[in-house]
Amino acid sequence: MTELDLIRELAEKNATKIVMLVADGLGGLPLEPGGLTELETAATPHLDRLAARGTSGLSTPVLPGVTPGSGPGHLGLFGYDPLAFRIGRGALEATGIGFDLGPEDVAARGNFCTLDSAGRITDRRAGRIPSEESFAVVERLAAISIPGVETFVKPVKEHRFVVVFRGPGLDGAVADTDPQATGATPLDPRPLVPAARRTAEVAAEFVRQARTILRDEPKANGLVLRGFAAKPALPSYAELYGLRAAAIAVYPMYKGLARLAGMTIVGTPSTLAEQVGTLAGCWNDYDFFFLHFKYTDSTGEDGDFRGKVQRIEELDAALPAIERLRPDVLVVTGDHSTPSRLRSHSWHPVPTLLVADSCRPDGLCGFSERDCLRGGLGIFQAKHLMLLAMAHAGRLGKYGA
Amino acid sequence: MTELDLIRELAEKNATKIVMLVADGLGGLPLEPGGLTELETAATPHLDRLAARGTSGLSTPVLPGVTPGSGPGHLGLFGYDPLAFRIGRGALEATGIGFDLGPEDVAARGNFCTLDSAGRITDRRAGRIPSEESFAVVERLAAISIPGVETFVKPVKEHRFVVVFRGPGLDGAVADTDPQATGATPLDPRPLVPAARRTAEVAAEFVRQARTILRDEPKANGLVLRGFAAKPALPSYAELYGLRAAAIAVYPMYKGLARLAGMTIVGTPSTLAEQVGTLAGCWNDYDFFFLHFKYTDSTGEDGDFRGKVQRIEELDAALPAIERLRPDVLVVTGDHSTPSRLRSHSWHPVPTLLVADSCRPDGLCGFSERDCLRGGLGIFQAKHLMLLAMAHAGRLGKYGA
Repeated sequence: MTELDLIRELAEKNATKIVMLVADGLGGLPLEPGGLTELETAATPHLDRLAARGTSGLSTPVLPGVTPGSGPGHLGLFGYDPLAFRIGRGALEATGIGFDLGPEDVAARGNFCTLDSAGRITDRRAGRIPSEESFAVVERLAAISIPGVETFVKPVKEHRFVVVFRGPGLDGAVADTDPQATGATPLDPRPLVPAARRTAEVAAEFVRQARTILRDEPKANGLVLRGFAAKPALPSYAELYGLRAAAIAVYPMYKGLARLAGMTIVGTPSTLAEQVGTLAGCWNDYDFFFLHFKYTDSTGEDGDFRGKVQRIEELDAALPAIERLRPDVLVVTGDHSTPSRLRSHSWHPVPTLLVADSCRPDGLCGFSERDCLRGGLGIFQAKHLMLLAMAHAGRLGKYGA
Repeated sequence: MTELDLIRELAEKNATKIVMLVADGLGGLPLEPGGLTELETAATPHLDRLAARGTSGLSTPVLPGVTPGSGPGHLGLFGYDPLAFRIGRGALEATGIGFDLGPEDVAARGNFCTLDSAGRITDRRAGRIPSEESFAVVERLAAISIPGVETFVKPVKEHRFVVVFRGPGLDGAVADTDPQATGATPLDPRPLVPAARRTAEVAAEFVRQARTILRDEPKANGLVLRGFAAKPALPSYAELYGLRAAAIAVYPMYKGLARLAGMTIVGTPSTLAEQVGTLAGCWNDYDFFFLHFKYTDSTGEDGDFRGKVQRIEELDAALPAIERLRPDVLVVTGDHSTPSRLRSHSWHPVPTLLVADSCRPDGLCGFSERDCLRGGLGIFQAKHLMLLAMAHAGRLGKYGA
C-alpha cells in the first residue's frame, strides 16, 4: 500500500485546527566558522517558548543533499512525495503567475524572440523588450483561435509569457521549440509520445497564427515554447486528508502551489500582519491553514544575513496573534534552507517545530538548527510532516488492529 | 533487490542467541507539561545498566505519525514492512484466538444476529447473547459440511465468532455480508475479484446451511461475515533469517502473530517469571526468542500511569534472570507506544535498547524516551531492528565484495 493510500484510509475528521506556518528558506548557515546561523542569531522568544512545549526536528525536503525549488519544497510539506509528483516547468510558470490550471490544461513557457526574414533567430530575448511593451504584444495573441481548444496567453515579465491550451486529450509530452541558439530557426513542436500528437499540432497551429499576428512587430516577431506540462495530478487536501484547507499567501507562486493541492486561496493580504488577520477572519471556515512567509527566503537569496535575521524576528513577533486562535496543532517550518552566505536555496535540512498537547517533550528550550538536531522529531522526510500534524490533531486513525 | 531478499542473501548461521523482549505499548507521555513519562518515572536499574553497555534509539513502528495496531506493530519488530504485509481482519481475529492459519485458509469474522420472519436483521448483536450461550450455538455449526472445503467455526466472545474455510484455490477478496443496519437483510457473499468466486460460493453455502441449523435459535438465528482474509504470506524466520525462533507469550494474539512468522510457540506460561523459566528451559533448542510482556500496554490503555510504571519496574526486575542465560544479543523494545495519558496506542516512537558485545557505545547511562533520543540507533524504522539484531549476533554477512 502506498503512503497516500494509507493516509486516505486512516484520515478522520474532527473539529481540530492545524496551522502550518512556512517561513520560506528558513534554514541557514553561519557566515564564519564558529559563528551562528541567521535563526540562531535572531531573538525569537516566542519560538523558543513554543519549542519547550512542542517537539522539534529537521526536515529533509527531498533527499539528503538535494536542493529543492519552491515547487518540490512545498509539495513535500503538503505531504506529496516530490520525487513521485513533478510540476513541469510550464505548469509551474502558469502556477507562479496565479493561473488556475485545470485537469484538461497543458501549459508552456513562451519566450518572444526576434527573427530575420529567413525566420532565423537574431535575438533570443526580443531585444530585451520591456514588460509594458511585451504585455501589449501578449494581448494581440488573444486573437488566436484553434478549433476544439481554448487558448490562454498570459504575460510574465519582459520577453517571457505563458500559454495554456485547454481541451480534451491534450498531453504535456511535447518537445521544446527553442533551438537554444541564435542563427537557428525555431523548431516545430514535436510529440515525444504518440498521445501528445494532437497537442503538438495545436502548438504548431498556435505558432503559425502567432507568426502571422506578430509579422510586423519590430522586436517580438517570433516566439519559442518550452516546458510543455499538464497540471500534476495531486490528490486534493479534501480527498486525501479530509481537510478543508485554506492558503494565506502574498505571492502568486505560493497561492498557485496551494491551489494545485486543492486549497482555497483566502484573502489578498500583503503583509504578515494582514495574513494573520485573514487567518482570524476565516478561522471557522477551514480545518487547515497554510501561511506562507516569503522574506526569509528573499533576504537569504540577497545574501542579506542581517535582513534575514530581522525577518525571522518579524515572524516570531507574529506568533502570539496566531496562538490566540488556539490552533490544536501549530507547525513552523520552511520549504528548504536559503543560507544568506550561499545566496541561494540549499539542501541543508530545515528547522521544524510542531506544537500540540500530545507532543512528547524533547527537552529543548530554543528553536534553531542546533536545537532541532536534538529534537524529538529527529531528521525526517518533509513528506511525513503532514502525517505528524494529522496524528497530533487526532485526525489519523489506527493502522491495523 | 528488496530488503527481504537482502536479508535472505546475507543471513548466516552461528551459535549465537538473540532475545527480543517486547514490552507492549512501552513508550509513553508525561501527564503534565514538564513532567516525566512512565518509563522516565520508573526505577529501572537493570535497564539503565544495560543501556550503558548497549546502544539505544527510538523505533518508528510504521511511519512518523502512524499509530499501529498490534498486528502491524509486531510485523515491524519481526522485520516485515507493515505496509507491504497486511494481516486482514479475519486472519487477525483467527490469529488472536490462537487458530493456526494455514496457507490454504481464508478466515472471516462472524457475528450472530437476530432475524425476523422476512430475514431482516432486528438485532445486530443477537440480543447481546452471552458467551456461554453463543459458544453452544457455535458448536452446532460444526455440522456444516461443504464439498472440497474444510470448515472451522470458533467462538470469540458474545455474538462474535471466527469461521475458517480451508481448501485449494480460496481467496480472501470477498465482500462483507454485513449490511451495517438493522431492518436490512444480510448481503450475499460477493467476490471482489474473479479469483474469489469459489470462496464467495463456499461462504454462501456456509450461510445457507447455518441458517437452516439456526432456524429455531431464539436470538442467534442469523449471521453476517466480515473481513474475509487469507493468511499473510510472510516468509518464515527459518527461511528469512535462518533462525530457529521461539515465541514465549501469555496471550493468544501474540502467539498467533509469532506463529504467522513461523515461530514455534513454547510453553504455556502465565506470568513473566514463568516466561523466563520457559526461556531457560528451551534455551538450547532455539536461536531467537520472542518474549511478549502485555501489561505495559494494558495499564496504558486503562489510563493507569502508576500501574504502567509498576509494570515497567516488574519488567526491569526480570532482566537479571534473562542476562544469566548470556544472550549474545538482548533487545528490549515495544511494538508501539501506549501513553496512559492518551489511554490508547499512539504514533510516538518507541524506546529501544540493543545490548551486545559489538555495540558502539553512545554514552547513555539510562533507558527512557529522552535518553533514547540521544542514542546510537537514532530514530529508526522498526522493520530494521531485526537487521541490527542479526548484525550484532554476527549473523549477517557482508553485502558485496
